[in-house]
Amino acid sequence: MLSLERRIMSEGTVAKGDVLRVDRFLNHMVDVRFLSEIGREFHRIFSDCGVNKILTAEASGIAIACMTAQFFDCPVVFAKKSRTSNISGSVYSASAHSYTHGNDNTLTVSRDYISPDDTLLIIDDFLAHGAALGALLDIVSQSGAALVGCGIVIEKAYQGGGDAIRARGIRVESLAKIESMSDDGEIVFAR
Amino acid sequence: MLSLERRIMSEGTVAKGDVLRVDRFLNHMVDVRFLSEIGREFHRIFSDCGVNKILTAEASGIAIACMTAQFFDCPVVFAKKSRTSNISGSVYSASAHSYTHGNDNTLTVSRDYISPDDTLLIIDDFLAHGAALGALLDIVSQSGAALVGCGIVIEKAYQGGGDAIRARGIRVESLAKIESMSDDGEIVFAR
Repeated sequence: MLSLERRIMSEGTVAKGDVLRVDRFLNHMVDVRFLSEIGREFHRIFSDCGVNKILTAEASGIAIACMTAQFFDCPVVFAKKSRTSNISGSVYSASAHSYTHGNDNTLTVSRDYISPDDTLLIIDDFLAHGAALGALLDIVSQSGAALVGCGIVIEKAYQGGGDAIRARGIRVESLAKIESMSDDGEIVFAR
Repeated sequence: MLSLERRIMSEGTVAKGDVLRVDRFLNHMVDVRFLSEIGREFHRIFSDCGVNKILTAEASGIAIACMTAQFFDCPVVFAKKSRTSNISGSVYSASAHSYTHGNDNTLTVSRDYISPDDTLLIIDDFLAHGAALGALLDIVSQSGAALVGCGIVIEKAYQGGGDAIRARGIRVESLAKIESMSDDGEIVFAR
């Protein structure tokens, strides 16, 4: 998605520790109008797949998932990072290591909201090592729901998480794929 | 907002510890179409106030803030619950006790995204004791931005947080105000 690549080039910054900061439009300040374009693109890609629910993880997946869900006219379920008193009853859960934050998170989804009757699209902001996405896929497996695929805004392709998941036969569509990123801020997109 | 009260009556449940669970449409599964109605209502209330940015807190405020921002055609800034490597530079921060989760959170916003030039609307899902909203107000103060008010989806009015904030001269508009809630599930709305 060319407009996304342009946005990353003009507003993204590369920080120490191999971190791509896109907090100006994606995951701290949110350019809602631009995210709507992203949602439209995910809908174009997955529109004929029978999606009835979108699954994402809090916090930074929520905005993109909601903007995308408007095009599918379906609800969003967001996995919580800790089990809270807001969630009732029994849950699906899976653990994910966060390389950004340097800790482990347990993602949790109430069994009330995903079932074998669902046809899910997973949406997330980033895919790097694939830990968070792996946990969401684990939750989908536990639920018995059908999965049409994963829509990712930015994939750091050189970290291999995406290809490992594709090798499992799972469809992963990334709107921007970064082939390499250097400490001096150079970003190269995969073609 | 009558449709919201109806939704709370039909799908909300009262749980031990004075918790109102609305995870079926608001803060775990998200009914995006309904949240768009909520956003339209916030826009109706605050449309003539010159809002150029919406401020909320992760995670459960993000969906509502984004749906609301579409009507204002403005970006959302969501306060993060911990300082992460995703946020660059210096920040505003304020501490809030979470009665739901039983811990303290530090809300953090990058100084890059709120400034004295901004006219902010705060949006959040719940207002009870007012701890989270108090922290957001503290951040607005630190930034020097103008604040038009706070749009809250559900206020637990009997817990006093809303009135304490109104007593400071801050406009707080809640779409559903709960006057009382009993352990056997009875919910009474304020009129």
